[in-house]
Amino acid sequence: MKKIPVIIDCDPGHDDMMALVLAYGSGKLDIRAVTTVAGNNTIANTTQNALNVLHYIGADGIPVAMGYQDPMVRSHKEQMELLAASRKKMRPQAAAPATGITGAAVHGKTGMDGFDFPESNPKTPADLRSVEMMAKVLRESQEPITLIATGPLTNLGFLIRLYPHLLSKIQRISLMGGTSEFVLTRQFMEFNTFVDPEATKIVFESGIPITMYGYDVTYRVLFNQSTIDRLRALGNNTGNMVADLLSYFRSSHNRSLSRLNLGDTAPIHDACAVAGVIDPSVVTDVRKMHVDINVGGSLLDGATVCDYQGALESLPKNVDVVYNMDTERFLTMLVEAAGACK
Amino acid sequence: MKKIPVIIDCDPGHDDMMALVLAYGSGKLDIRAVTTVAGNNTIANTTQNALNVLHYIGADGIPVAMGYQDPMVRSHKEQMELLAASRKKMRPQAAAPATGITGAAVHGKTGMDGFDFPESNPKTPADLRSVEMMAKVLRESQEPITLIATGPLTNLGFLIRLYPHLLSKIQRISLMGGTSEFVLTRQFMEFNTFVDPEATKIVFESGIPITMYGYDVTYRVLFNQSTIDRLRALGNNTGNMVADLLSYFRSSHNRSLSRLNLGDTAPIHDACAVAGVIDPSVVTDVRKMHVDINVGGSLLDGATVCDYQGALESLPKNVDVVYNMDTERFLTMLVEAAGACK
Amino acid sequence: MKKIPVIIDCDPGHDDMMALVLAYGSGKLDIRAVTTVAGNNTIANTTQNALNVLHYIGADGIPVAMGYQDPMVRSHKEQMELLAASRKKMRPQAAAPATGITGAAVHGKTGMDGFDFPESNPKTPADLRSVEMMAKVLRESQEPITLIATGPLTNLGFLIRLYPHLLSKIQRISLMGGTSEFVLTRQFMEFNTFVDPEATKIVFESGIPITMYGYDVTYRVLFNQSTIDRLRALGNNTGNMVADLLSYFRSSHNRSLSRLNLGDTAPIHDACAVAGVIDPSVVTDVRKMHVDINVGGSLLDGATVCDYQGALESLPKNVDVVYNMDTERFLTMLVEAAGACK
Amino acid sequence: MKKIPVIIDCDPGHDDMMALVLAYGSGKLDIRAVTTVAGNNTIANTTQNALNVLHYIGADGIPVAMGYQDPMVRSHKEQMELLAASRKKMRPQAAAPATGITGAAVHGKTGMDGFDFPESNPKTPADLRSVEMMAKVLRESQEPITLIATGPLTNLGFLIRLYPHLLSKIQRISLMGGTSEFVLTRQFMEFNTFVDPEATKIVFESGIPITMYGYDVTYRVLFNQSTIDRLRALGNNTGNMVADLLSYFRSSHNRSLSRLNLGDTAPIHDACAVAGVIDPSVVTDVRKMHVDINVGGSLLDGATVCDYQGALESLPKNVDVVYNMDTERFLTMLVEAAGACK
Repeated sequence: MKKIPVIIDCDPGHDDMMALVLAYGSGKLDIRAVTTVAGNNTIANTTQNALNVLHYIGADGIPVAMGYQDPMVRSHKEQMELLAASRKKMRPQAAAPATGITGAAVHGKTGMDGFDFPESNPKTPADLRSVEMMAKVLRESQEPITLIATGPLTNLGFLIRLYPHLLSKIQRISLMGGTSEFVLTRQFMEFNTFVDPEATKIVFESGIPITMYGYDVTYRVLFNQSTIDRLRALGNNTGNMVADLLSYFRSSHNRSLSRLNLGDTAPIHDACAVAGVIDPSVVTDVRKMHVDINVGGSLLDGATVCDYQGALESLPKNVDVVYNMDTERFLTMLVEAAGACK
Repeated sequence: MKKIPVIIDCDPGHDDMMALVLAYGSGKLDIRAVTTVAGNNTIANTTQNALNVLHYIGADGIPVAMGYQDPMVRSHKEQMELLAASRKKMRPQAAAPATGITGAAVHGKTGMDGFDFPESNPKTPADLRSVEMMAKVLRESQEPITLIATGPLTNLGFLIRLYPHLLSKIQRISLMGGTSEFVLTRQFMEFNTFVDPEATKIVFESGIPITMYGYDVTYRVLFNQSTIDRLRALGNNTGNMVADLLSYFRSSHNRSLSRLNLGDTAPIHDACAVAGVIDPSVVTDVRKMHVDINVGGSLLDGATVCDYQGALESLPKNVDVVYNMDTERFLTMLVEAAGACK
Repeated sequence: MKKIPVIIDCDPGHDDMMALVLAYGSGKLDIRAVTTVAGNNTIANTTQNALNVLHYIGADGIPVAMGYQDPMVRSHKEQMELLAASRKKMRPQAAAPATGITGAAVHGKTGMDGFDFPESNPKTPADLRSVEMMAKVLRESQEPITLIATGPLTNLGFLIRLYPHLLSKIQRISLMGGTSEFVLTRQFMEFNTFVDPEATKIVFESGIPITMYGYDVTYRVLFNQSTIDRLRALGNNTGNMVADLLSYFRSSHNRSLSRLNLGDTAPIHDACAVAGVIDPSVVTDVRKMHVDINVGGSLLDGATVCDYQGALESLPKNVDVVYNMDTERFLTMLVEAAGACK
Repeated sequence: MKKIPVIIDCDPGHDDMMALVLAYGSGKLDIRAVTTVAGNNTIANTTQNALNVLHYIGADGIPVAMGYQDPMVRSHKEQMELLAASRKKMRPQAAAPATGITGAAVHGKTGMDGFDFPESNPKTPADLRSVEMMAKVLRESQEPITLIATGPLTNLGFLIRLYPHLLSKIQRISLMGGTSEFVLTRQFMEFNTFVDPEATKIVFESGIPITMYGYDVTYRVLFNQSTIDRLRALGNNTGNMVADLLSYFRSSHNRSLSRLNLGDTAPIHDACAVAGVIDPSVVTDVRKMHVDINVGGSLLDGATVCDYQGALESLPKNVDVVYNMDTERFLTMLVEAAGACK
């Protein structure tokens, strides 16, 4: 069967790692490029993490193109300060200085703590930067490309503005981000869409078909200890690496969000947006609706305001919002993909 | 039994009329003043409507103090234009010019179409304006006063800013406005809180105890044809007047919002905020939660962002949000109150 | 000759003190009330300072009505933090915490350091608050009243919104604030208009005649050592008090703004707005122009954008901007007024 | 002598045309690429105009790379509507719908009315889009490149964000845009910086050396009838074309801005930013100062707030603002350059 051509835009991140393993190990995707963005960590670290994962799992042939530290027009550092302030519900200026790396609490210092990749990695970033690489892949492709985005949408925002003539080559954007009804902190607020509100707005208003894997689904399809045991039982390098990293992530994620009482389970957000591309039938509940992106300087900049109740009848249903997936099949896909790697 | 001292701040409006009839006819409230605000119609019309209702039902002794056409710092006209634009999801400047009187579709030209009050009404507004009157009542009262607000919160915003030394005299603000989970147009958006976002923010952040009767409850406790029949069967002036006005309102409201499929039922929003003061036990579901008011120039200015899922654990639960009431008792209270009037 | 009826709205402040002395000592004004606002210091201190000055100079008969710590919709503390941040041209959240009392560098801890008023002062604030007092004076006056404002425009913003029916009683607003071409820190930016941008906008768009004594004139008409000598030579209490306070102010002002190289001279901003009411002929250069107030969340909120070059031909010339006064006559007015006090 | 390598980013536009003629005809510049942007007209028309001019004057070898219709994150159409509204000093939503092409009043329907270029023009846009072309030139160049920008700064904003590793290859940005003290409509407001406030902010805060040829100089160095006579007397194609276009522009510009009383003179804004690169000694008055770009949703978004009075002592002097040039030499440069073309 013909492989589905994709670009994966990510900010690894433990769950981005899982997304890459799933994408590569599934054997169903033709990964034309991996592009990176700052988010879970700095652009330097997310890029190095992507290189480490791809090399380790045997995917050296896939080019990695480095993106940018800052959102389209804002600064990453200031967004992190706003986030810290918002969490305290104080005015930004009154908030304690933030570290500038929000993901640290969950993803650790490197953005992917919990496994020591071999230091000697011959793989380096491509000469092209992220957005150029995306454009090159689109330009050179005969068939439409599916964009899988698992970090802030900066690269896609730039792509849409800079290469309008190439957008017809995009089959669909399958993204991890946003939230419809699930509330982790504030309504409508999810980290990826928060980081770059302007890029998020550009993407959601682009007219390109979008499937959104937000908190509504990612907090429904959870792995558990048995998943880790199955991964470890694979006996290969990738299985062990993934098991180590998911264990680390589960531990730090659940400590940070103890009020969720997740027990031995945890989400693997980003992998969801890959699984649905590999096999759309793994998605068991998806709802078409109108989604607005809030901007303008308020507490809710970057929010995905989802019309899940269908009140805005006259507005276009511009997003397919995923609400549920077949958890068992999803986890089996992950394990099998890890098993197919090095 | 001792009557509960209240001030009623309103913008009649059919449902404000019902709120006044209920408050007066119940015999349980000591209505120290009625103050008006623009909202369902212009300040001239909402004030005249209040005068008409009070005179007609025999409540001539209650002073009516006129409020203001404009919100605290914005202009009423511009807010109505923004609303019209928002409904079309177009940029404001591209939207068709609004009439400046949003409520017209539901409440008619006068703000209370559907019944002809006698032209000769000796009752006139007090010499004091709304906010002065509120301050006077608070100042002169030995006991704390409950403020019932059924329109935009402009008068209360001014009161809080201008009379900080009198705020300890306020027992509680029982307001119709806002929404937690019920979506009529956009999430979090309700007309009263939209009209004056800055006043809404001041009220909700004031620290004064607030009970919020928003769409979550007002679209749950609906009157129907049988309610109208009971009102008409009362045989008195007030019963007929109320029956006429509720019939008119139901017809125009349900035509405007046909997608709600309300059949022969319709809400009486504002009366809810009175009923709960008269008899708190009519409220069957009320939930304490943190509520933020969004401002800053976005699509969602004036939104009541309710933390109904309890995600913001560290923030104060500043509002009692009403979710349900005993509909039968509520309707019976309305009918009995109308029966006790002239 | 008939005295001119005025209300003085101020935030003493050394130059507000001079404004009060000039107003009272001139014998030409009928000061119906003094109202206060936070600005140069907290509302508690500016009010006490006003009481101290009036008692000391023998003006016990003039009622003092206390205003508010916060601007109309913003918070004083947050505005001061923004100012501190703006001065450093850093984003607010990155700026060092401000003291909350900006004027301290120039006006000292009490807002009027440099003279010890007797501790026993029988004078206390009126029962009415600032805005109520203004309304009362307007309501009870047969003739139109001139409003002299020498602090942030919060009280006037409230007055205009709350008492539209009384505005025809206002002859003119003579205010110290704003700037046209003189640049102290950022273009268009002056402290009084910065503190409450929304109130400033309401005042400037009110249609009431406005004479603006901004930096363009206040940094042109400067007192010097000889002025202080003349004041001290008066031999009365007021002369000494004024001499002490102006000396203190000159010293701290010129230390803070050493780059201005003012030598032994310094401005007495607020007194200018009084002098022009007492004797309009002391103004030697006044220009009618369109003035916009910038709001909306930017660096320049509260700026008085003056069309001094006449580019906006079709817009109304809503403000008389004073550019120069007869310095000698102005200073002589000050000295003579001080001499006529106790 | 070695030619100076440049990229010219423009939106022709009559004065952009003059900038191209001067750049090419001078023989002093190595024009590596011409890139286009929407501004004086749509991107389709400004690009075609650039192609027409270059072909007509014999500069077929210079690649033209097409840019974008919209600013970085805003929409061109909405900016034009805001401008129309701002001119009327009405709220945007109340303003009459704009044409979407602001320059039409001055530059005509095509953006360069007044001369009929031959219809058969073999020259077509490059395969690369504007920002890609800029990056390619920078990447391939051994020596630093001077960027000359005579339209909105969208392309430069993208370039700076997307190619941080190439910015050291930029010698300087010589731009027509902004204003320091000269007021055409509102203070600080000039068309190019208004159109894309976010891009303008990115450019001015980039740390790249900037020379700004704003209204302060462009309304000082004016051509007149004698300039047109000299151009026509050249007898070549380019001389006639330029004479026709400048005549058209002078006529429409001066009709639109009759209050300036320019007589038979008119500015050639964009050519100034080229002249100073060819021969810096033509600039007779240039001042280093701190320049802020205002953003945030106000009337003054995109304004160049120039600290021409040196009040912000502690802030970096990030821009060389040109105030005057030697008009005679400038005009002679124009005529000689036209004479050197086909």
